Amino acid sequence: MSDNSPLKIDHIGIAVEDIESKKKLYAEVMGLEYKGEETIEDQGVRVAFFRIGETNIELLEPLGEDTPVGKFLQKRGEGIHHIALAVKGIEQVIDSYRSDGVRMIDEKPRIGAHGKRIAFLHPSATGGVLLEICEE
Amino acid sequence: MSDNSPLKIDHIGIAVEDIESKKKLYAEVMGLEYKGEETIEDQGVRVAFFRIGETNIELLEPLGEDTPVGKFLQKRGEGIHHIALAVKGIEQVIDSYRSDGVRMIDEKPRIGAHGKRIAFLHPSATGGVLLEICEE
Repeated sequence: MSDNSPLKIDHIGIAVEDIESKKKLYAEVMGLEYKGEETIEDQGVRVAFFRIGETNIELLEPLGEDTPVGKFLQKRGEGIHHIALAVKGIEQVIDSYRSDGVRMIDEKPRIGAHGKRIAFLHPSATGGVLLEICEE
Repeated sequence: MSDNSPLKIDHIGIAVEDIESKKKLYAEVMGLEYKGEETIEDQGVRVAFFRIGETNIELLEPLGEDTPVGKFLQKRGEGIHHIALAVKGIEQVIDSYRSDGVRMIDEKPRIGAHGKRIAFLHPSATGGVLLEICEE
């Protein structure tokens, strides 16, 4: 454990072709609490939020084929897209990762869903896992 | 929300070729708390546990190629393998899912890491996501 230790899993992003067709499974069958939706134009994605414990499951529906989630679906099909860890002091955490030799997709935070500041680690640094860090 | 609602994300399983080579990233670089390892012979997997909030990240290293995680690695490479949701009354939850038409890999619970009772939903029911439910 260190000062940079993440606080919790903030959310798990799951790429889907169509949010509507998956709502029944997560909300009605599994009983997760549906918390609404948000369109994030600059990431080309519509997001539906389902609460579970201290975490959200986020269903990610692409706004078009030429978007990060659209390309993921073409390449791999529906499935788990990324894991996001909540951190405190995201700039310092990024600097710390970089000084440990971790390649970042985002070397500065950008704005994600719910107005959070987010940054992605490069999958080459994590063994194929798309990891996000984020801060409220 | 219903009586079957899961309590939290119990763990996220990540398939890796080699646990040792990933420990540095999760424990030293990212600062997750390393909680030890366990070999589960009948699932053909060695598991390393890292605590984050109320959840564990579990690195899954196959004991051989002809194991579920070994086959996953050959097909998809390293990456997120499954998400496990903690539930209460796993038999009733399975029955409830089945009566809602959800196909299960395990129609009865079996024993997983830490002696928990576990059952997997069939990915065809979830849009490609391997979802586990588990109970202490």
